[in-house]
Amino acid sequence: MSLSVKHLLGIRDLTAEDIEIIFQTADQFKEVLNRPIKKVPTLRDTTVVNLFFENSTRTRISFELAEKRLSADVVNFSAGVSSVKKGETLIDTVHNILAMKVDMVVMRHSASGAPHFLARHIPASVINAGDGINEHPTQALLDAYSIRERLGQVKGVRVAIIGDIMHSRVALSNIYCLKKLGAEVMVAGPPTLIPKYIEEALDVRVCYHVKDALAWCDVANVLRIQLERQNRPLFSSLREYNLYYGIKRSWIDALQKPIVIMHPGPINRGVELDSEVADSPQSIILQQVENGVAIRMAVLYLLAGKKESFS
Amino acid sequence: MSLSVKHLLGIRDLTAEDIEIIFQTADQFKEVLNRPIKKVPTLRDTTVVNLFFENSTRTRISFELAEKRLSADVVNFSAGVSSVKKGETLIDTVHNILAMKVDMVVMRHSASGAPHFLARHIPASVINAGDGINEHPTQALLDAYSIRERLGQVKGVRVAIIGDIMHSRVALSNIYCLKKLGAEVMVAGPPTLIPKYIEEALDVRVCYHVKDALAWCDVANVLRIQLERQNRPLFSSLREYNLYYGIKRSWIDALQKPIVIMHPGPINRGVELDSEVADSPQSIILQQVENGVAIRMAVLYLLAGKKESFS
Amino acid sequence: MSLSVKHLLGIRDLTAEDIEIIFQTADQFKEVLNRPIKKVPTLRDTTVVNLFFENSTRTRISFELAEKRLSADVVNFSAGVSSVKKGETLIDTVHNILAMKVDMVVMRHSASGAPHFLARHIPASVINAGDGINEHPTQALLDAYSIRERLGQVKGVRVAIIGDIMHSRVALSNIYCLKKLGAEVMVAGPPTLIPKYIEEALDVRVCYHVKDALAWCDVANVLRIQLERQNRPLFSSLREYNLYYGIKRSWIDALQKPIVIMHPGPINRGVELDSEVADSPQSIILQQVENGVAIRMAVLYLLAGKKESFS
Repeated sequence: MSLSVKHLLGIRDLTAEDIEIIFQTADQFKEVLNRPIKKVPTLRDTTVVNLFFENSTRTRISFELAEKRLSADVVNFSAGVSSVKKGETLIDTVHNILAMKVDMVVMRHSASGAPHFLARHIPASVINAGDGINEHPTQALLDAYSIRERLGQVKGVRVAIIGDIMHSRVALSNIYCLKKLGAEVMVAGPPTLIPKYIEEALDVRVCYHVKDALAWCDVANVLRIQLERQNRPLFSSLREYNLYYGIKRSWIDALQKPIVIMHPGPINRGVELDSEVADSPQSIILQQVENGVAIRMAVLYLLAGKKESFS
Repeated sequence: MSLSVKHLLGIRDLTAEDIEIIFQTADQFKEVLNRPIKKVPTLRDTTVVNLFFENSTRTRISFELAEKRLSADVVNFSAGVSSVKKGETLIDTVHNILAMKVDMVVMRHSASGAPHFLARHIPASVINAGDGINEHPTQALLDAYSIRERLGQVKGVRVAIIGDIMHSRVALSNIYCLKKLGAEVMVAGPPTLIPKYIEEALDVRVCYHVKDALAWCDVANVLRIQLERQNRPLFSSLREYNLYYGIKRSWIDALQKPIVIMHPGPINRGVELDSEVADSPQSIILQQVENGVAIRMAVLYLLAGKKESFS
Repeated sequence: MSLSVKHLLGIRDLTAEDIEIIFQTADQFKEVLNRPIKKVPTLRDTTVVNLFFENSTRTRISFELAEKRLSADVVNFSAGVSSVKKGETLIDTVHNILAMKVDMVVMRHSASGAPHFLARHIPASVINAGDGINEHPTQALLDAYSIRERLGQVKGVRVAIIGDIMHSRVALSNIYCLKKLGAEVMVAGPPTLIPKYIEEALDVRVCYHVKDALAWCDVANVLRIQLERQNRPLFSSLREYNLYYGIKRSWIDALQKPIVIMHPGPINRGVELDSEVADSPQSIILQQVENGVAIRMAVLYLLAGKKESFS
C-alpha cells in the first residue's frame, strides 16, 4: 500500500483511497499504542525536523511522540529561537536544514501555501502541520478517523462544523476530507464568520442557527474561536458569542437523539463549548487527541516509504 | 521493594520506609552513574513528559538526564511556548497530553497543590518537581541523601535550615523529610521570613540569629533568597541581608567544629552565602547536584513499577 | 590518530596536523552521512550538553544532529530559559551541569573567552561554538574543508574574506585556519570594518575595494553583516552597503575566471550577497552546511577519545 502523493500538503490532493490507506495503517499503529511496548523501530534511520514557525504545543508534541515511537531522530526548530529573526528567508532556512541530511519536514507556518512552496524546492517529504488559513490535513484525518471509529463509517454521516469557518484551516481540511469519504457536511455559525462562496464552491450546507444545525447532524465538530487570527473583534464579547453560538447542555438534551461532540482543541470552555458538553460521554475530544498520534505515525510511515513491517 | 504511594506529590505522604527504599535504590543508580556506561534500559518503553509551568533549568535538566539514562522517551513542555497562553485550563492541557499515552508526568507549577489536583484526575504517575510554596520533594530527598552520604546517617544529625523559610518549598519538604528520618531540625533567619506557626505545627526549633544556629548544628542548609517570590522587599538591600544573615568564612572558622554546608542552588554568591564558604571542602553543594540525578532515577524507577532489574 | 588538544577552543591552538586529522576523520563521517543509515553507535555512552547563551539555530541544529548521529545523549540548554536569568554565575551553572556527569560541553557565549575560562575549571572537554568576537573554530574548519573538497587542496589557494572583519569571529578563525594550511589570505571590506592591526598582526593582505579582492582571489568567503553586533550603524543604509560592497552577478561575470563563493549563513540576500550569486553553481554555501555536520562529528569523536571504530 502506498499513497498517490509524496507530501501531505492538504486533503485536497488526496484520493479517497489514500485516506483509506492512512486509516488502515493508523488502525495498526493504534494497536501498537495500546501495547505495553509502544515503540517500533520502523524509522530508526530517518531524521525528521519539526519546523514550527507558529506556536502549537499539542500538535508539536503529537508529531514528536509519533516520530519518537517510530524511532526516528527528531530535531525541533521553533520560530522563537530561530534564524528567522535574523531576516533569513524561509527557503534559506530549509535548504540549510536539508543540507544536514534531513529526511522529512513537518512544518507549521502562518502563511498559507508555505509548505507547498517548500515542497517544490526540496527533495524531502513535507508534512503540513497547519498553514495559515489554508489546511491542517492531519487534523482532518484524525477527525474523520475518530468519526469512523465511533460510528463505524464516515459515508452518509451528517457532520456539522460549527463556529469560525472563515479563518479555520481545520474547517477547510475537514470539509475536503468528509466530502471525499461521502459524508454530508454542513457549516454553521454567525454569518460574519462564514464566507459567502463556501456553499457553492465546496458544496456544503450553510446554517446560521446552531440549534438547527444540531437538530440536523449526527456529529457536531465545534471549532475554537481563534481571537488571535481575527483582525477585528466580531462580537462585542465572548459572552455574547456563547449566548448565541456556544453549545450548551440544554440544547443537546433537547435534541432527543444522540449526537457526537468533537473539538480540535484547545477548548475555550464557556465560549464555544460548555464544560458539561465537553466532558459528557457524547464527547470524543480525547479520543481525537489519542487518534492524532496514530494518524501521524501512519502518515510519517507511509511518506517515508519504508518497506519493512512495523508490527 | 515498592513505595506506599503511586505519585510523589510531597514528602508529607511518604513513610520513613519509603524514603529508605528510595535511598537504597539511589545507591544502586549512583553506582551506575559512576560506570563508563551510565545508561540502563529500565524505562525503554516508558514515555515521560516534563511539564514545566515555571522555569527551572537545573531541575529540568536533572530530571531529563535521569529519564534519558533510564532510556525513557522524553517530551519537554514549557509554559513559555504552551497552549496555556491560549487560555486552556491545566486539566485540559494534561488530559490532552495523557491521551497521547504518556506514562509519567513530572510537573513544576507556581500554584501550590497543582500536582495533587492533577493526580486526582489522571491515571499516570505524577512527580512534583516543585509546586508554589508547598513542596519540592525530590530536592528534600537528595538533600537528606547527601547528608546520609557525608555523615553516614541522618538520624540524630542536627540540621539548621537557614534563610527565607516562609516562601520556601525546599524548607518545608526538608523539614518533613529530616523529621521522618529522625534528624533534629532548626530553622533560622530573619523573623519576617519565618512563619509564626512553624515551631508548633512542625515541631522544629526556631532561631533568629544565624551565628547561634551555626553553633548548634552539624549541617547548615542555606536557602536561596528568592526575591522573585516575595511580594515586597523585606530588606532594604541584599547587602543588609548579607551583613546579618549571609554565611561568612569568619563565622564558620570561629565555630571550632566542622559543619557541612549545603545549598539547593542557584547560589546568590555574596548574598546568602559567601564564595569562600560555598567553595570550601565543607561544602557538599555539587554532591547534592550529582545525587539529584540518582535520586530522580530512583523515584522514576520505583513509580514506574517495572519489575526488571536495572543493573 | 589523536589531537594535540583536549578542548576545541580556537583554531589558534591547533597544529596543521590536528586540522588534517579532523579533515580525514570528517571524510569518513561524510561517507556515513551519504549512506541510507546515517547513525553510528560511537558515542552511545556519552552525554553532551549544548550550552547556548546566544541564539543560533543553525549551529545548534548542526551540533545536535552531529551528536545524535553519533548516538550521544543530548541535553539542550538555552539562555532564554536558564538560571542565568536568576543571576547565577557561568561557572556555577556549568559546575552544576557537570556534577550531573556530562562528558562534553558545546558552548556559545557572547563573551570572548568564556569557553576558555570554562575549560580551565572543568574536567569535561569543551567545544567552542562561537565566543563573542573571538573565534568560531568549527565554522573555520568546515569552511577550509569545503575549499579542500571543491579545489582539491587548501595550500596555495587565494582566499578573500569579505565584509565586517572587525566584529567577526568567523573571519578570525578562518584567517588562523587558512594560514596554518598554507593558503594566501586577504581581507576586504569598508575601512571602518577592518581593524588597523590586522595586516601586521595576522600577516594577511588588506583591500578596501571588493572588486579588486575578487580579481585577486580563487575563493570569496562573504561574511554576514551582523547589524546586531555593531554598536552604531556604520552605513546610512544597507542599500548603500550593497552598492559598494555587496557581491553582484555582474562583478562575478566580469572576472573572466571561475571563483568559488562561500558564506557562513544566514545570508542577508541583497545586502552582502545577491541571490543570483548565492544560488549560482559557483556557490558552495549548502555544501558548507552539509560539511558542518561531518566536521562536528569528527571533532566530537576525536575529543571524546573513544577507541572504537565508527564505521
